[in-house]
Amino acid sequence: MTKKKLELHPDRLFPADEKVRGIARELFAAANQHPIISPHGHVPPEWLAEDIPFNDPVSMLLTPDHYTNRILHGTARVDLADLGVPVGTPMTEEQSRNAWRLFCKNWWAFRGTAVQFWFTSEFVDVFGVDIRPSEETADEIYDIINEQLKTDAFKPRALYKRFNISLLATTDDPASDLRYHKQLNEDPTWDGKVIPTFRPDAYIEPARPGFKALTEKLGEAADQDVSTYEGHVEAMRKIRRFFKKNGAVSSDHSHRDAGTARLSDREAADLYQQALAGKISVEDGDRLRRHMLNDQARLACEDGLVMTLHPAVFRNHDEAAFARLGADVGGDVPMATEFTAALQPMLTEYGNHENFQTVLFTMDQDVFQRELGPLAGYYPSVFVGAPWWFLDEPDAMRRYREQVTPYGTFYKTSGFIDDTRAFASIPARHDVARRMDAVYLARLVAEHRLALDEAQEIAEALVTTIPSTAFKLN
Amino acid sequence: MTKKKLELHPDRLFPADEKVRGIARELFAAANQHPIISPHGHVPPEWLAEDIPFNDPVSMLLTPDHYTNRILHGTARVDLADLGVPVGTPMTEEQSRNAWRLFCKNWWAFRGTAVQFWFTSEFVDVFGVDIRPSEETADEIYDIINEQLKTDAFKPRALYKRFNISLLATTDDPASDLRYHKQLNEDPTWDGKVIPTFRPDAYIEPARPGFKALTEKLGEAADQDVSTYEGHVEAMRKIRRFFKKNGAVSSDHSHRDAGTARLSDREAADLYQQALAGKISVEDGDRLRRHMLNDQARLACEDGLVMTLHPAVFRNHDEAAFARLGADVGGDVPMATEFTAALQPMLTEYGNHENFQTVLFTMDQDVFQRELGPLAGYYPSVFVGAPWWFLDEPDAMRRYREQVTPYGTFYKTSGFIDDTRAFASIPARHDVARRMDAVYLARLVAEHRLALDEAQEIAEALVTTIPSTAFKLN
Amino acid sequence: MTKKKLELHPDRLFPADEKVRGIARELFAAANQHPIISPHGHVPPEWLAEDIPFNDPVSMLLTPDHYTNRILHGTARVDLADLGVPVGTPMTEEQSRNAWRLFCKNWWAFRGTAVQFWFTSEFVDVFGVDIRPSEETADEIYDIINEQLKTDAFKPRALYKRFNISLLATTDDPASDLRYHKQLNEDPTWDGKVIPTFRPDAYIEPARPGFKALTEKLGEAADQDVSTYEGHVEAMRKIRRFFKKNGAVSSDHSHRDAGTARLSDREAADLYQQALAGKISVEDGDRLRRHMLNDQARLACEDGLVMTLHPAVFRNHDEAAFARLGADVGGDVPMATEFTAALQPMLTEYGNHENFQTVLFTMDQDVFQRELGPLAGYYPSVFVGAPWWFLDEPDAMRRYREQVTPYGTFYKTSGFIDDTRAFASIPARHDVARRMDAVYLARLVAEHRLALDEAQEIAEALVTTIPSTAFKLN
Repeated sequence: MTKKKLELHPDRLFPADEKVRGIARELFAAANQHPIISPHGHVPPEWLAEDIPFNDPVSMLLTPDHYTNRILHGTARVDLADLGVPVGTPMTEEQSRNAWRLFCKNWWAFRGTAVQFWFTSEFVDVFGVDIRPSEETADEIYDIINEQLKTDAFKPRALYKRFNISLLATTDDPASDLRYHKQLNEDPTWDGKVIPTFRPDAYIEPARPGFKALTEKLGEAADQDVSTYEGHVEAMRKIRRFFKKNGAVSSDHSHRDAGTARLSDREAADLYQQALAGKISVEDGDRLRRHMLNDQARLACEDGLVMTLHPAVFRNHDEAAFARLGADVGGDVPMATEFTAALQPMLTEYGNHENFQTVLFTMDQDVFQRELGPLAGYYPSVFVGAPWWFLDEPDAMRRYREQVTPYGTFYKTSGFIDDTRAFASIPARHDVARRMDAVYLARLVAEHRLALDEAQEIAEALVTTIPSTAFKLN
Repeated sequence: MTKKKLELHPDRLFPADEKVRGIARELFAAANQHPIISPHGHVPPEWLAEDIPFNDPVSMLLTPDHYTNRILHGTARVDLADLGVPVGTPMTEEQSRNAWRLFCKNWWAFRGTAVQFWFTSEFVDVFGVDIRPSEETADEIYDIINEQLKTDAFKPRALYKRFNISLLATTDDPASDLRYHKQLNEDPTWDGKVIPTFRPDAYIEPARPGFKALTEKLGEAADQDVSTYEGHVEAMRKIRRFFKKNGAVSSDHSHRDAGTARLSDREAADLYQQALAGKISVEDGDRLRRHMLNDQARLACEDGLVMTLHPAVFRNHDEAAFARLGADVGGDVPMATEFTAALQPMLTEYGNHENFQTVLFTMDQDVFQRELGPLAGYYPSVFVGAPWWFLDEPDAMRRYREQVTPYGTFYKTSGFIDDTRAFASIPARHDVARRMDAVYLARLVAEHRLALDEAQEIAEALVTTIPSTAFKLN
Repeated sequence: MTKKKLELHPDRLFPADEKVRGIARELFAAANQHPIISPHGHVPPEWLAEDIPFNDPVSMLLTPDHYTNRILHGTARVDLADLGVPVGTPMTEEQSRNAWRLFCKNWWAFRGTAVQFWFTSEFVDVFGVDIRPSEETADEIYDIINEQLKTDAFKPRALYKRFNISLLATTDDPASDLRYHKQLNEDPTWDGKVIPTFRPDAYIEPARPGFKALTEKLGEAADQDVSTYEGHVEAMRKIRRFFKKNGAVSSDHSHRDAGTARLSDREAADLYQQALAGKISVEDGDRLRRHMLNDQARLACEDGLVMTLHPAVFRNHDEAAFARLGADVGGDVPMATEFTAALQPMLTEYGNHENFQTVLFTMDQDVFQRELGPLAGYYPSVFVGAPWWFLDEPDAMRRYREQVTPYGTFYKTSGFIDDTRAFASIPARHDVARRMDAVYLARLVAEHRLALDEAQEIAEALVTTIPSTAFKLN
C-alpha cells in the first residue's frame, strides 16, 4: 500500500487560465483578510457557552453533517445507524472507530463533491492531516485528530477564534429561553458574538398533528392567552421582541410553499379555532399558514427582524428512515417552487416598507434567473440568498452569480451562508464561496466587463458590508 | 477626488483565452459590417417622423428605460418619481440635473449588469464621454451630453443614420391611425425604414375591466360592427390588413399564459356576449382569450403577419407603484411558463402552414432547452426568439445559444431583438448580442465543432438573413 | 465548386486551453481503451440475428434516425415522406438518391448540432469519407458508402465487432417471443451479446383505446387469465421472468408523468374492470397506471430487473404528421416534469430494498439539480440516467455532470446510453460522451478539485463498472 498525499492546493477552484487565475488570486486575497460572518447556521449555542470539548472525530465531523451521512448512505450503501445517526446516540470508542473506518474506506464516494472539498480543507488546515483517507489510513487519521481534540486548542471557543469568526447565528425554537445566548452575553471572558434566530415553523403549521400543544407551549413561553388568533399573533410579537432583545436579527421560515396570501380576519379566526380543535383540513391549514406567514412579515415591519425564507423541500421522503432515525438524516428532497405569485401579497404590502427586509433562499436553482433576481432587482426590501443547501458547491455558486448578477447586482445578495451544524467545516465552506466569488469577478475583469478596482471593492463588500446590510448587523 | 476613466475595451466580452479571443474578434468583425435590423421595439414613431430633438440627458437616457429605473429603485433605494417616472412627467432643469446626479452617484449599483455595459457604450461611443459616473462627475457628464443634444447631429434621424439602422419596428395599438408611419413613408427626405407592429393584447382580454369600451374602439377603428364574435374577428382581420399595408410584418402578443385552445363556435359566441356585458368570469375570460389567440394565428395564415409571443409575466407586482406611477415602471416579474401543451392546439393546426410563422420569446430561460428548442426544431413555422427582457445580457445569451443550438440550430432563431424605448441604447444592445454570438461561435470553432468558414457564414447570417427570414423582411 | 474537406479533429470537443486539453486527452485515452456497453437502445435484434446487409445509405443512416428527419423537416423544410419516413417504406434507387441529395444539400441545417457531429464521425471513421456534404458532393458520397455496404465488412455483425461493442440491449414488446435473442444465444458463430429489454408502456395505459385487446394479447403471451387485476399482475410477473431468463436486465417505462401512487386493492380491481370495459375516465386511467407502475417496482423487487424511467414527453404533437406517418417521426416534445413527489410512494416503499434499482432519465434538464441528483444521492437504489434524447449533445452533457456530480457523484450515474436505432451512429454517440466526461474531469483536475489518479479511475469506471453496476450487468 502506498499512502497517498491529500493536497490542498493554494490555487484550488481557480480557473486554469493563468491570466484569470492571477486576477482571482488577487481578489480572493482581498476578501480573505476579513473575518467570517455567519448570519445563519445550526451550531448549538451550548457548545460555545459551555466550551464543551469535542469527544471524538466522528461525533465532531461526521454525525452532525447530514451531507456526509447522505452520501455514505446513498452512494456507498452504509447504514445510517452505523454512522452514529441520529445525533446524540451514544457510541463506544469501537463504534466510533468503525464509523470512521466506513467513512475513510468510502472516500471514493465523495469524489467531485463539495463535501470532499470541505473535508480536505478541514484535514489539512484544521488538523494538519495530509494523508488521503482510505481503509488503510483510517486509524492513523483517527488517532491524529483524536489526540488534538483532547487539547485546549481544539475546544469550541478556541476554534471560533482560530476560524476568525466575527458573528455566528444559531437557530432557535420560539419557546427557547435563550439561556446559552444570555450566558455568552454575560460572560466577561467571551468576546465573540453568538446570536439567536427566531424559527417558528412548527408553530404556524395549523394542520399538523400537535398544533394545539405547540400553541399552548408558545402561549406559556410568551405568557399570553392564545385562545384566539389575535392572541397567537400577540404571542409571536412578544417572543420576537424577546429574541431581538437577546441579539436576534432575523426570523427563518421554511414551508412547503412560499404562499403569503391573507385571509379575512374573520376567516383567520375561524380557521384558527378549527386548528386548535384538530379539525382543520390540510388545504385550510395551508391557507391559514400562508396568512400566518404574512403576519410574520407584518410583525417584521414593527420589530425589524429580517425574514429569511427557504421553501419547497419534501421533508423525510424516506418514511422508514424517518420512523427509525428521525428528521434531518438526509431524506429531504427539493421540489419545484414558485415565488413571484406566492410572495406578491406580502411584497406588494410590505415590500417598500423601510423596516421590512427579506432574504429569499432556494433549493431550486431555476428561480434565480426567473424570479429571485427580478424580485430583488425591483423591491428595495428583497435580497437573493446565497446558494445554500443542495446548492452550496462551486459550480452552483458560479451559476448563481451568473444568473442573479444581471438583476440584483452584487449588492442585493446576502453574502455566503454556511447553514451548518458541522462547526469545523465553517471555514472551508466560506473558503469555497470566497474563491468562487473571486473566480466570477475575475472573469468579469478579464472580459472587460468590470474594472479591477470595482471588482476589488465588491470582493471585500461580499464578506463585509453586503451580509451586514442584508442581515442588519451593526 | 480622482476622476476615473470609463473604458470601452475593443475586446470587451471576449474570453480571456487568446486563441478563442482571436477567433471571436474575427467573427465579430464579419458580423459588425452589417447594419442593425430591429424588428421589434418601442421607440415612438413620432420621434423619427417629427425628428424631435431630445430635451436633456435624463428624458433621453434614463426615464424611458425601465431597466435603469428598476435598479436605481431596487438596489439604490431611489424614489422612482425622482427619476421623472412616469415618462412624460415635466421636469425642470434642476429636477433633471438631480435625477442625473442620483444616477451618477449610484453608478455602483449597476456593476456587473448589462445596463452598465450599455451606458458605457453610449457614453463613450455616442457622446465621447470617458469619465466614470460618480457624485463628483455627474454635472460634468450632464453638461457634455446636454450640449451635444442641442446639435443637429443628435436629433433622432441623424442618430438613426449614425447607428447604421436599416429597419426599426415600433409597437402600436390596433386603434392607431399609423399617421407617423404614413408620414415617414411619404417623406421624400427620409430613406430609413420604420414599420408598425400590431399589438392587440388589451383587446383580447375579455375579463379585464373596460373590455366593452376597447371593443367599441376597435369596431370604430375597423369600421366594423363588433356586436358578435364574428364581427370581432372581422375587425381584427381588417386592422391587421391595414397594418400590413402600412408596412407591418408581425403581430405581438403577451398574456399570462401561452394557451391557444379553441372553443366551439357557439361557446365562443356565448362567452363573447358575457364579456361585452361585463359578466364573464376570470376563468372563462382566459378560455375566450386563448380562443382569440388561436384566431390570431388563423388570421396570420391569411395575411402572413409573423406572430411573436412572450407570455408569463406578473404585471405590476407592486400595486402601490402601479397606482401611483402607472404600468411599465419596473414592477413586472417573470413567472414559470409552459409552451409545449399550451401551443399544441395552434401548432398542430397551423404549424405546417406555409403562410404561418411564429417567434417564441420567453422571460423564463428554463423553456429554451425543454420546449422552445424542440418546438422550433420540429415545426418549420416556429422560431426561438432571442433572449430579451430579463435575459438580454451576456451570460444569458451564452446559455441561450448553448441550449437552443442543438435543436433549432442557428437558422431557427430570430436574430437579436432590442425591444427598447431607449433609442440611444440600440447600438449598444446589438453590440452585446453580436459579441456574444461571436464568442459562442468561436468556442465551437476552437473545440473543432464547426469549421471556421461555416462560423463566419453564421455570424453574418445572424444579423442579416436570419432575422429577415424570421420576420419575413424583404 | 471547391470540394471542402470534412475534418474529424483528434482533439474535437476538448477545450482550447492547452493545459486542460492535455489532461482531457489523457483521460479520454484511458476511457477509450474499453469496449462500448450499450444497455438501452432500439436496434432491431433481427439485424444481428440474421446479419442482414444494409440496403443503401439512406435506409441505413437517415430513415431510422428521427433526429436527422426532425432537423431536415423543421429547419430545411423537407417533407418527411421524401426521406423514406416512416421506416420500412420501400424506396427506389432514385428515391433513395434523392433523399440523400436532400440531406447533403441541407448539411448547413445541422451546423452546431450533435447530429452533424455524429455524421462527421460516421463518414470519416466508418466510411472513410472526408468530403463535406453539399448538393455537389451528394452523389459522390452516396456512391462511396453504397459500394462499401455491399461488402461483408459492413454487415451488422462485422460492424458490431469493429465498433468494439461488448453488450447491446434492444427494446421489446412484452408479447414478443424474443426469437431473435434466442437465435443469437444459440448461435455458436456469434460471440457478441444482445439482450432484450421489457417495455410494457402500452399495456399499462388503461384509458387508451385498445387496452382490452392489448390485455388479451398480454394474457395469451403469458398463458394467464387476465380477467382480474391480480391476473394482470401475474401475467406481468411471468413475462418479466421470461425476459430475464432470456438475458434482460431492465424494464423501461415512459408515461406522461412519473406518478407511482398506490390505490387500495379494491379500487385497483374496480378501475381495472372499468378499463377492460372501455369505460374508465382519463383521470382514473392515470391513477390506475400509476398504481400499475408501482406494481412494476414491486415485481422488480422480486425479479431484480432494473427499472428505467423517462417520463414527460408530449407524444405526436403534430397530429397530422402522426396520422400520415405514424409515431416516432419527430413530433414529440418534452414537457416539465416532477419526480420528487411523484416517485415518493415507490421510493419510500422499495427505495432501500436490496433487489430494487431504478435509473431516472429526463428530457427536462431542470430536474438534474433539483430532484434527480438529490434522489440518487440519498437512495441507494436510485441512479441518475445520463443525458439522452433531447440532451445527448456536448453542452448538455457538461451541464449534467456539473449539476449531478455534487449529489450523486459519478458512482450514482448510469454511464452513457445511446438510445438509438441508428446502428452506425453508436460509436460516435459514445465518443461524444467519453470526450465530454474527460473534459469535465479535466477541469476538476486543473482546478485542483480532484487528483489526477482519481480522475483516471473515474474516467475508466464511467465506461466499465458504473454502467455495469447501474444495469446489473455481469
